[in-house]
Amino acid sequence: MPDDFETMWSSLAPVGRSASSGGYFRQPFLSAERELASWFEEQARARGLTVERDGVGNLVAWWGVSTGSTDHAGAVVTGSHLDSVLDGGAYDGPLGVVSALAALDLLVSRGFSPSRPLGVSVFVEEEGSRFGLACLGSRLATGAVSWSRAKELQDRDGVYFADAVASAGLPGSSDSSLLDGVATFVELHVEQGRDLVDRDAPVGVASGIWPHGRYRYEFRGRADHAGTTRMEDRADPMLTYAMTALAANKQARLSGERATFGRLEVTPNSTNSVPSGVTAWLDARASSPSSLEELVGAIERQASERASRDETLLIVTAESVSGAVSFSPELASRLADRRGWPVIPTAAGHDAGILSAAGIPTAMLFVRNPTGVSHSPYETASVQDCLAGVVALADVLGELAGDPS
Amino acid sequence: MPDDFETMWSSLAPVGRSASSGGYFRQPFLSAERELASWFEEQARARGLTVERDGVGNLVAWWGVSTGSTDHAGAVVTGSHLDSVLDGGAYDGPLGVVSALAALDLLVSRGFSPSRPLGVSVFVEEEGSRFGLACLGSRLATGAVSWSRAKELQDRDGVYFADAVASAGLPGSSDSSLLDGVATFVELHVEQGRDLVDRDAPVGVASGIWPHGRYRYEFRGRADHAGTTRMEDRADPMLTYAMTALAANKQARLSGERATFGRLEVTPNSTNSVPSGVTAWLDARASSPSSLEELVGAIERQASERASRDETLLIVTAESVSGAVSFSPELASRLADRRGWPVIPTAAGHDAGILSAAGIPTAMLFVRNPTGVSHSPYETASVQDCLAGVVALADVLGELAGDPS
Repeated sequence: MPDDFETMWSSLAPVGRSASSGGYFRQPFLSAERELASWFEEQARARGLTVERDGVGNLVAWWGVSTGSTDHAGAVVTGSHLDSVLDGGAYDGPLGVVSALAALDLLVSRGFSPSRPLGVSVFVEEEGSRFGLACLGSRLATGAVSWSRAKELQDRDGVYFADAVASAGLPGSSDSSLLDGVATFVELHVEQGRDLVDRDAPVGVASGIWPHGRYRYEFRGRADHAGTTRMEDRADPMLTYAMTALAANKQARLSGERATFGRLEVTPNSTNSVPSGVTAWLDARASSPSSLEELVGAIERQASERASRDETLLIVTAESVSGAVSFSPELASRLADRRGWPVIPTAAGHDAGILSAAGIPTAMLFVRNPTGVSHSPYETASVQDCLAGVVALADVLGELAGDPS
Repeated sequence: MPDDFETMWSSLAPVGRSASSGGYFRQPFLSAERELASWFEEQARARGLTVERDGVGNLVAWWGVSTGSTDHAGAVVTGSHLDSVLDGGAYDGPLGVVSALAALDLLVSRGFSPSRPLGVSVFVEEEGSRFGLACLGSRLATGAVSWSRAKELQDRDGVYFADAVASAGLPGSSDSSLLDGVATFVELHVEQGRDLVDRDAPVGVASGIWPHGRYRYEFRGRADHAGTTRMEDRADPMLTYAMTALAANKQARLSGERATFGRLEVTPNSTNSVPSGVTAWLDARASSPSSLEELVGAIERQASERASRDETLLIVTAESVSGAVSFSPELASRLADRRGWPVIPTAAGHDAGILSAAGIPTAMLFVRNPTGVSHSPYETASVQDCLAGVVALADVLGELAGDPS
């Protein structure tokens, strides 16, 4: 008998967990994340599913597709990812994968037999925590990013994506038939906010994903002696940065949007030197492309004004900007209306957004998160809500992959 | 014939220089700094000086002390250091060493014969750029820091001071007779400010060193998803830090003192996460111990107030606090009055301060720095002023080490 939800969840709990913070370090192609990939393949085999793997390690475990076949016309796929941000939570990603396997078990126990291929997917590097580009696995699988671009991406230690992929025994390449013929994609995910808490609902359906941009802010000043240089003689980029971080926060707070500086590099990063440079990354999200533009414009304007007062220089580079994603409204309302689930937006990016942009009708289910905290060791969901999520996912898959009624 | 000032200066110019920034990376016991130490020993031997080395690599090249002897009763020592901050300037340290050798040459050319031992010193790790404790070499040589404490210090890669010392082929140990019997110490240094520019003088004498403290500020908050967590639901330590950096600057500017945040570590330092922690180092200097206390107290108070608004936690630890140093007023006025040199304070720490605190009558000479910039690739001094410094140092050494008249 395959492992049930709680047994699977317990197996994952120790993998990649930091003893000091309690958070997870499951960066792609490193040992913890590879262990999870192997675990997934074992679980798939224990259920008699056929595992298909593409050149960069994206996986789909198929029910109703024989080994070696890539014919999955009209398929319904569900799944998520197993990697984490640095020091992340247990639920973001793995909940969708474990729930998918448990939902298949529930369908089996109900005597369900799919009328079309039903797959459970795991995409690599969803978080972009190692190579800087979120949803890299699903972008490659859908052709949104080419192998020739992806292979040149480097992690913080200068390791190329191509070499990381090879180190995991994978061949690389952009040719992927993994998603050929896929007619519907459903991703279950822990909610990363408190909408479902406010609505007193264990499960909800996503309407879409907010536009999202990442911008590199390079503040350049003049290195100086921290003791002898008079404050008024300095060109200190740390001050320009500090004011920008506060301005970004205020701007986003006033407009109900999001702006975060969570990553920073200081040069030379020495206690007794005024820094010569500060590089900081702005993560900004807003409810529409125009409001994102407005938000980012306002932050950059304030930063530039302060730079001229500080006699520092500011260079802003957009590293990635993703437009808004609307999931299939027909699918969302069909799933939600029948069951009374709330339909809510999210400000987080997901592989589901990439698949939706690639033209695959897509839906997302969220499971309630009592604190709303995510990307953090404090991320959580109750067992009861997780099991409600499994039932919800099984119902949805049964409807999508069952006999047309 | 030994190399003259300009030849020596040219020999040092390429050592440890970054091609991209033009700054110097001469961290103790690494290749560039070791090359400079070897160069110094060669220069000393070329002048027939006797080189004495202690267990951690501090050097004195003696005129008038025979090889193997540690009898230097009544000695006059001059010198500085050869290490740099990360991405530092060419003058901070090396100018004092090269000028000392050139001053000895000038005394020889004047037919001078010292009536007491005359030494040129080089102390290791003056900047504290690798092991975090400034003036580590001179602190060990004077017994201000014990070997048992020093050997446990670690650099950012976790290398112990003891192992770094051993890797340079040095035995370690605290037993140092290098400064036994030293009656006077004189350090020549590039000015790290613009007092001499304002006073239109190429050379000045130091009255003393401002009190100086280094404080570790640990700001702790709660990691969260940068997209989904509403601004008002966050406990973002980056905001508390940013406001503290601005407050420190303003406080120091208003009181004519110094407060700098030049070093920062962010956890987990990820673009799409609200950070869980920010650790920043405050470098603060003021004209008196009580004004330093007031400055640091005001900064900490504002940081704590903001932390409670941000629902973050702040822990402040004083890593090192050095009291005020007054150099020998008798010596300073004797040197300055006769020559019309201005007497000025400095906010920078120096080995001279450590030797002074150890009870050795000490003086410092400063050479004009046109921009006042220091700890930076832009640090500079004109050749003419440097040569004026050599003459000034030779005059002082001649007076101190010559026959009592």
